[in-house]
Amino acid sequence: MGTKTLQLIADNFQMTRPSIARAIAAKDAGAIRQMVKRWLAAGAQGIDINTGPLPREPEKTMVFLVETIAAACDLPLLLDTVNSAAIRAGLQVAAGRAIINGLSLQPEKMERILPLAVKYKVPVICYLLRADGHVPPDSQARLEIALRLWEKASSQGLEPEQFIVDPVLVPLTWADGPFQCGEILTTVRYLPEILGFEPRTIIGLSNLTAGAPSASRRLAMETAYLPMLAAAGIQILLMNIEHRPSVAMAQNCNLLTTGGIFSWQQVCL
Amino acid sequence: MGTKTLQLIADNFQMTRPSIARAIAAKDAGAIRQMVKRWLAAGAQGIDINTGPLPREPEKTMVFLVETIAAACDLPLLLDTVNSAAIRAGLQVAAGRAIINGLSLQPEKMERILPLAVKYKVPVICYLLRADGHVPPDSQARLEIALRLWEKASSQGLEPEQFIVDPVLVPLTWADGPFQCGEILTTVRYLPEILGFEPRTIIGLSNLTAGAPSASRRLAMETAYLPMLAAAGIQILLMNIEHRPSVAMAQNCNLLTTGGIFSWQQVCL
Repeated sequence: MGTKTLQLIADNFQMTRPSIARAIAAKDAGAIRQMVKRWLAAGAQGIDINTGPLPREPEKTMVFLVETIAAACDLPLLLDTVNSAAIRAGLQVAAGRAIINGLSLQPEKMERILPLAVKYKVPVICYLLRADGHVPPDSQARLEIALRLWEKASSQGLEPEQFIVDPVLVPLTWADGPFQCGEILTTVRYLPEILGFEPRTIIGLSNLTAGAPSASRRLAMETAYLPMLAAAGIQILLMNIEHRPSVAMAQNCNLLTTGGIFSWQQVCL
Repeated sequence: MGTKTLQLIADNFQMTRPSIARAIAAKDAGAIRQMVKRWLAAGAQGIDINTGPLPREPEKTMVFLVETIAAACDLPLLLDTVNSAAIRAGLQVAAGRAIINGLSLQPEKMERILPLAVKYKVPVICYLLRADGHVPPDSQARLEIALRLWEKASSQGLEPEQFIVDPVLVPLTWADGPFQCGEILTTVRYLPEILGFEPRTIIGLSNLTAGAPSASRRLAMETAYLPMLAAAGIQILLMNIEHRPSVAMAQNCNLLTTGGIFSWQQVCL
């Protein structure tokens, strides 16, 4: 059973959403601050800044976003882009609270993103993907990838506390979706044994139901899988922070898995 | 991850509930049939007949209950009493669908209840309690008890498929409640390795929130813990079948952990 409190990161800031694309295009800091305040109120303990590849003005756009969001909250900020120039620009202004999202065995990422994590001494989310970018078939393949990633990253100077593992959740609608859900739990459980230390772990919960049209079924599946992740030892959830039942479930899991006895007695007796 | 479908047993038939005590005292078969139909409609896949110790007319009362409930459904029936005379009487009329609830290392149970399970070739729920009836402090103690129970039971002729393990859930309000919740999951996960075969496992979910006055908090904690149990491999839930959110959660867990991909696609796409 996990003994750490689940930390909830909002995945709501995505360039692909029209309202956010508009706010970025118009450099509308007020609109962005409003969103961040809404996510804070909903329980966010971190914000993923998903800018997409940023083909135009990558540095300028990332600096604008990081400065705007940083001014609206005290939370960790995830710099979520494949554009290493944008990541570097974000790191230069993020004042010690940036997390790079993310790294994988893909050669271009090892070359361009790993050195930034080492140089700026920031945590980096490491995806358990194959070097060709594909999702591994099972937990054994994921654990082998985790070990190779750690060997490469640590040989370049990355410290254990910077190494955050994302075992890569796939949609339930994939043919092997439910099987993969089980393999993710196994992966999380065995990571400390394989690596020789207990890395932080993160999962992108929204992936579980990507492509599913029914909001109520999405929430039902998220809230069923979330406690399984918590019990396996996942520490960070990247999620739609406006999914209230999922947030409530995460908070209830924290009561069960951590020093929750006090909170539970406060609430219940 | 568990790969079997969770089976839901109603724990609603309890002699300690006034409406049920009245129905039994009045031998009101109609009232009992109505209850059973309600539990069937709510999703019950088995009925626990919790009669208490039955100090007066144990055989007659158990036969009346078993015959009445058996006539109202085709489900497995759990004979839940410490009174071995009542269990024997129930077994004589239960026509191959009885389960004894239950056995433990307590000497009087080993003497009086184990022989009934062997003689009538029925499954028996084996509680991982110490010989003095106390709850073990952790998973290691539970696993040692499981092994001792199995050694004693199998030496008397019990078969592996008759051996159903209940690791004994304790209330969250106990000082070590949350710790014990984690230990239960560990126990379930390691049972196959310790025993050398995979026993069926059952948990009394209502124990989790015994003594908690708030119905909404009870349901919140049940629905958070239930997927953790499912992922650990629990196969049978003894639960309040009228807790609709808990039943829905169990059904969603089945979509996640078993051949649920088909159901999920039917529901979702």
